[in-house]
Amino acid sequence: MNKPIGIFDSGIGGLTVVKELVKLLPKENLVYFGDTARIPYGTRSVKLIKQYALEDAAFLEQFNIKILIIACNTVSAVAVDLLKSALIIPVTGVIEPVVSAALNISKKKRIGVIGTTATINSQAYNKQIHSQESDVLVYGQPCPLLISLVEEGWVDDEITRLTIRKYLEPLLQKEIDTIILGCTHFPVIKELIQDEAGPEITLIDSGQETAKVVKKMLDNMEIEANNKSDGSFKCFVSDIPDKFDEVGTRFLGKPVINAERVDFDNFLIEKGEKIYTPLNLNV
Amino acid sequence: MNKPIGIFDSGIGGLTVVKELVKLLPKENLVYFGDTARIPYGTRSVKLIKQYALEDAAFLEQFNIKILIIACNTVSAVAVDLLKSALIIPVTGVIEPVVSAALNISKKKRIGVIGTTATINSQAYNKQIHSQESDVLVYGQPCPLLISLVEEGWVDDEITRLTIRKYLEPLLQKEIDTIILGCTHFPVIKELIQDEAGPEITLIDSGQETAKVVKKMLDNMEIEANNKSDGSFKCFVSDIPDKFDEVGTRFLGKPVINAERVDFDNFLIEKGEKIYTPLNLNV
Repeated sequence: MNKPIGIFDSGIGGLTVVKELVKLLPKENLVYFGDTARIPYGTRSVKLIKQYALEDAAFLEQFNIKILIIACNTVSAVAVDLLKSALIIPVTGVIEPVVSAALNISKKKRIGVIGTTATINSQAYNKQIHSQESDVLVYGQPCPLLISLVEEGWVDDEITRLTIRKYLEPLLQKEIDTIILGCTHFPVIKELIQDEAGPEITLIDSGQETAKVVKKMLDNMEIEANNKSDGSFKCFVSDIPDKFDEVGTRFLGKPVINAERVDFDNFLIEKGEKIYTPLNLNV
Repeated sequence: MNKPIGIFDSGIGGLTVVKELVKLLPKENLVYFGDTARIPYGTRSVKLIKQYALEDAAFLEQFNIKILIIACNTVSAVAVDLLKSALIIPVTGVIEPVVSAALNISKKKRIGVIGTTATINSQAYNKQIHSQESDVLVYGQPCPLLISLVEEGWVDDEITRLTIRKYLEPLLQKEIDTIILGCTHFPVIKELIQDEAGPEITLIDSGQETAKVVKKMLDNMEIEANNKSDGSFKCFVSDIPDKFDEVGTRFLGKPVINAERVDFDNFLIEKGEKIYTPLNLNV
């Protein structure tokens, strides 16, 4: 089945998920939407994030996608169930795959989570972990500067190393053995994080784990791309942000060819005068 | 005249301007609005920034203010003239005062400007400088990480020092003698910036310069607070962001007492169903 897989994120950090999908599922056709005009989602109300999630999904549905991946931590935290019930295709976020992997790997049952301040404060990872295993200790550490450092391109810099060291220090004192990279930006500096965390600690990467789960979903439903497919990737964004090419390349691991800016307001109007307004949204 | 002075910013960084106003004009009553729910303005379209500026000003006009200070670099860059023509009270931004000071001080006529990526890319300082003196060389340096570092509270940290050093390096090579602190966050780390820039370089602080200009305006119009006034400060924000107390204290130099969250959407509706919609805005 050569229908594409749809992936969306509030920005272009989700391209780190695309990178892993391309690696694991090279024959699949991928369509990505990054809502760069409305980033960041993390500071919005839950109601608004749900609305945005429905709108982003509606955009990707145009391409007749066979499966939807929410590559955004914020949306994964608050709107996976909503999208699962609203859409007729299978949906996965990034939190469930990562948490399952972390629970499999952690022997001490002491897990650290690093992410944006909004992600950590939402306790999304804690809740997901405790819904599966209640006796696991979870330690969250907001790392807002790491996002800025990755976006600034200081990915192999002493300043980034020192920043990682400073952020990890309180986590490492908790004797964790596993760290969840709870932000799409972090795979870009994974080696540096591993270096500072030390070899005893396993890092769980949402891109890799989500790609594995998607592979399993495609296998189970027998909707993989057929062998003759060459695989393709199309990237849409609602705004072309500053240094898009440079930052995009960093996330995807290669240049983002032919990224297309979508007039998203116009899409929503054409779609029916913002059908998903907060007032209509009783979910 | 004991009417208050109104000050607004897209966030709470403008409290560094308030700090200088309190120092220079202790008898004045100050009302501040920080539009924390819609921050950052820097990435919005010019049309939307103008709309926001009008809305923020309308909020402060409720308090019968005698003068309006735009403590936001982004709004100062694109909407000072609009607000001057839309309002019947005197208005000042932060760019004009700073540029006048920098031109007075720079002997080499080589000026550096540091700010957010949006501020530097807007070329607002260059344009203002060149409108007054065309033969001055202006070098802009976006310093996005410094904003994150101040918000994270790492204001006296080796990481911040190294980051400043890295950002200033290309500027210092240009043999500048003056640096404009083109972001409300930077006064918080002014000493560290001065340290790294060296004693030959003069830093121009928008809070200080704007306070001086405001003092002059009040004097000229003879609308200073009378001598019996004790001076007061009231702070409104459209959202209470993460670590508001901590970050606010850092900007203001003392705790922000009784900050009040405004339901800004509701204010706009009550004001007349968003009278300043982009469609109505032909400016």
